[in-house]
Amino acid sequence: MNNVIELLKSHTSVRKFKEKMIDDQLLKEIIQASQYASTSNHVQAYTIIRVNDQDKKRTLAKLSGNQPYVEECPVFLVFCADLNRLEKACSINNETIESSSTEIFIMATVDTALIAQNIMIAAESAGLGGVYIGGIRNNPQDVCDLLQIPHHVYPVFGMCLGYPEKINATKPRLPLSLILKEDIYSTDGDEKHLKEYDDLISNYYKERTNNKRSNTWTEGITAFLKEKQRPHMKEFLHSKGFEMK
Amino acid sequence: MNNVIELLKSHTSVRKFKEKMIDDQLLKEIIQASQYASTSNHVQAYTIIRVNDQDKKRTLAKLSGNQPYVEECPVFLVFCADLNRLEKACSINNETIESSSTEIFIMATVDTALIAQNIMIAAESAGLGGVYIGGIRNNPQDVCDLLQIPHHVYPVFGMCLGYPEKINATKPRLPLSLILKEDIYSTDGDEKHLKEYDDLISNYYKERTNNKRSNTWTEGITAFLKEKQRPHMKEFLHSKGFEMK
Repeated sequence: MNNVIELLKSHTSVRKFKEKMIDDQLLKEIIQASQYASTSNHVQAYTIIRVNDQDKKRTLAKLSGNQPYVEECPVFLVFCADLNRLEKACSINNETIESSSTEIFIMATVDTALIAQNIMIAAESAGLGGVYIGGIRNNPQDVCDLLQIPHHVYPVFGMCLGYPEKINATKPRLPLSLILKEDIYSTDGDEKHLKEYDDLISNYYKERTNNKRSNTWTEGITAFLKEKQRPHMKEFLHSKGFEMK
Repeated sequence: MNNVIELLKSHTSVRKFKEKMIDDQLLKEIIQASQYASTSNHVQAYTIIRVNDQDKKRTLAKLSGNQPYVEECPVFLVFCADLNRLEKACSINNETIESSSTEIFIMATVDTALIAQNIMIAAESAGLGGVYIGGIRNNPQDVCDLLQIPHHVYPVFGMCLGYPEKINATKPRLPLSLILKEDIYSTDGDEKHLKEYDDLISNYYKERTNNKRSNTWTEGITAFLKEKQRPHMKEFLHSKGFEMK
């Protein structure tokens, strides 16, 4: 196993950071290297907003569902899927194009995720750690107002980065048999493997140092999906000009 | 700069592969390591279908817009966003939950992209190369029929992997000033930087060995967006039970 594969296998979310700042040059190097992620038709349909202002970070911590590390982390990034720049590119060529559609929404969202994952890995390779903040979608319109995010741009998630104060143990993932299929999407054996994974996760939760509990993976998923997650997203995206045509 | 950051900076899509097969154990190691990618609320809402059957690969090459490398590559993976497993998890706990919504669609699509990018990087770290195949969304219903992809699962993209026969030069990315903003989404200077990038890309296209051309980035984007991209996606997703509620 090479050191990159080792690095990927060691990923855990980091929510407690040392006070040490990230050197600007290092952050720049990480982001520029990460831009080489694949991008559909070279559209590069993303913009990253680095939030330095402490008041803004405090507000974002609240808007994300009271996640204090959003305020405390040395670097907080908001990853946006961006069609605004694409439309500007068209207008430079004297074309007025309404780019929004379900397909372009997928394209921009995937582009944004790919560069973000590169940034997470590059950061970890440099001794940093971080966590994705999906909570940025809890109150996305307020986030847009705060960061002056324009039409045809939406915040997909945030990311805290910094030097880890504390590194958690990795959390067991689904067995390969469940997530990797051969030639067809077969569900043979899935129920058995889900039950085995439930036992594994339940033991993991019982044995870990902090936040001990005993629920299984399927129980966690059930509890999660019983709550309607962020039901405002359709309307919010519509208001930002992301038409699911 | 460390070797991980070097690796990220060297990424280019690989479409010509040696005949050498990828060792099964290595592929397994790559995918299992990649599963440690962040996942929203630990949902791990993805399934990867490895296509071994040569007839299926040939069909997928055609369905993806006649991309021969889909057929020729040693390993072809289809990455699916998967709510089917989540609903099964609920049914194990005697809950019938209709999980589909705009938010859950984003969550599953992002989850899928994050593990895929880990796989790309892990593969590259092991001397492999590859390319994302967005063309899997050209005829997504046919892809679903071929691979027996069920309701509440959709193919987001494919990925060819193998040992590179030929490695292209990297393609210049947008300048950092365009994609990284501080505290607010400001567009000051964007037009100037877009023009500089247009010159850079135009020179890159003129000078590269293969497929020489001279168009700028903004011209490429304009030509791309003038064509309505995959207008069937809304209806297709609807038919697969992805309701944009």
